[in-house]
Amino acid sequence: MTELMSREEFRAALYAIGERQYHDLHPFHQLLHGGKLQKGQIQAWALNRFYYQVSIPRKDLTIMSRMDDPALRRAWLQRVLDHDGLTQTGELDETKVGGIERWLRLTDGLGLDRDYVKSLEGLLPATRFAVDAYVNFVRDHSLLEAVASSLTELFAPSIHRERIAGFERNYAFANDSTLSYFRKRLDEAPRDVEFGLDYVLTNAHTAEQQRHCLRALRFKTELLWAQLDALHHAYVSPNLIPPGAFVPVDMEPTRYSR
Amino acid sequence: MTELMSREEFRAALYAIGERQYHDLHPFHQLLHGGKLQKGQIQAWALNRFYYQVSIPRKDLTIMSRMDDPALRRAWLQRVLDHDGLTQTGELDETKVGGIERWLRLTDGLGLDRDYVKSLEGLLPATRFAVDAYVNFVRDHSLLEAVASSLTELFAPSIHRERIAGFERNYAFANDSTLSYFRKRLDEAPRDVEFGLDYVLTNAHTAEQQRHCLRALRFKTELLWAQLDALHHAYVSPNLIPPGAFVPVDMEPTRYSR
Repeated sequence: MTELMSREEFRAALYAIGERQYHDLHPFHQLLHGGKLQKGQIQAWALNRFYYQVSIPRKDLTIMSRMDDPALRRAWLQRVLDHDGLTQTGELDETKVGGIERWLRLTDGLGLDRDYVKSLEGLLPATRFAVDAYVNFVRDHSLLEAVASSLTELFAPSIHRERIAGFERNYAFANDSTLSYFRKRLDEAPRDVEFGLDYVLTNAHTAEQQRHCLRALRFKTELLWAQLDALHHAYVSPNLIPPGAFVPVDMEPTRYSR
Repeated sequence: MTELMSREEFRAALYAIGERQYHDLHPFHQLLHGGKLQKGQIQAWALNRFYYQVSIPRKDLTIMSRMDDPALRRAWLQRVLDHDGLTQTGELDETKVGGIERWLRLTDGLGLDRDYVKSLEGLLPATRFAVDAYVNFVRDHSLLEAVASSLTELFAPSIHRERIAGFERNYAFANDSTLSYFRKRLDEAPRDVEFGLDYVLTNAHTAEQQRHCLRALRFKTELLWAQLDALHHAYVSPNLIPPGAFVPVDMEPTRYSR
């Protein structure tokens, strides 16, 4: 149907997806970075996004479990270590602190109880469905598509920069501890994505494979977007919190009646 | 932690979940049944819900694939046949028409192109994530929990009656053809759920199994609810349609900009 694209055309087609539908375009992020959200709304975001953070290593290990090539597995392992960290209990080497722990420093700084965050109790069900869809995707599709789905990292550095600047400008909770996750990702993401992009550009040999890679990347932008839709619906507008989900102290639970 | 409930207490605890969080409580359904939605919004609902309908036989076959007992499989098979139907091409025995075909008569009546509906192109990604979570759940949890997750059928007849009455009262598209899915389910659901409820009440022998069954039923209500949250957010309020999703003819696509 479609013809095989050149490496440059294929690269441009991948980038065009981010241009069109990466979640930096979502109104929730614009409110978040623009200083328009109340603390409880930001808590809801950080609490839900925590499930994404803790699921990323499971996603990457699922990908690795499908790789035949030890060199490829060694290269991919860094992503798991970035999230899980290299510290043992009691060790205090800051550079070894992983992304999950850094995210918990953000939820600490927002006044959320760590045990509550880690319990995953107040999650929006839609967060769980979207994130689990990612882990299932990389298990159920080809390795090439699994790698392609990671390429939203192409677009991440600019949203992280925007977030760091927006948080520093607008929110009292912004400090070295709460921002450390995003600062660290500014270094890590470009390194990861260079590898993933090269892999995809090199290993998509047919027009069909290229099409599947583009679909995989679109799928990934959709699941990022869906997480923000659910947050926006529950905590911004129309502010209908689903039964059982986290209720910020500055909000009332939504009452539903027949 | 908790004690084993009597059969009657356990039954009451299952019903209490429906009382508290079945999706008849969701504002989208109240608008839908109350005649407050425009045709395009109802199209969006029917289009998205179609993915749920076509996934139900896959869900039930996944459950059946885990059953050791032929008698149990024979009993469960009826659900698949109810959705898939018993007709061959060209045959015109109305009683043999399955739920999927009946749902397509609803989307026909709403003016949607069948090929478009069946292509699943316009779906909200959140619909796909929630529905796929259901199929994955019955694969990844115990058979008992899988059966328990089906027990939202306990609460379905009253929403179907409400829907039939509301559609007839409020919408020009309501007729024997577009309502035939719901009328048929009024007969089928009570028969199915009697079997499933008895199975769960009889086979949850420990407090932990009862707890897991309650959690499974809550999970099911959450995925039904999340589908309506996504529809409400995209097509009612704040009416932010995600990139790539169905745009009714009476709406503009949402423009997102940086």
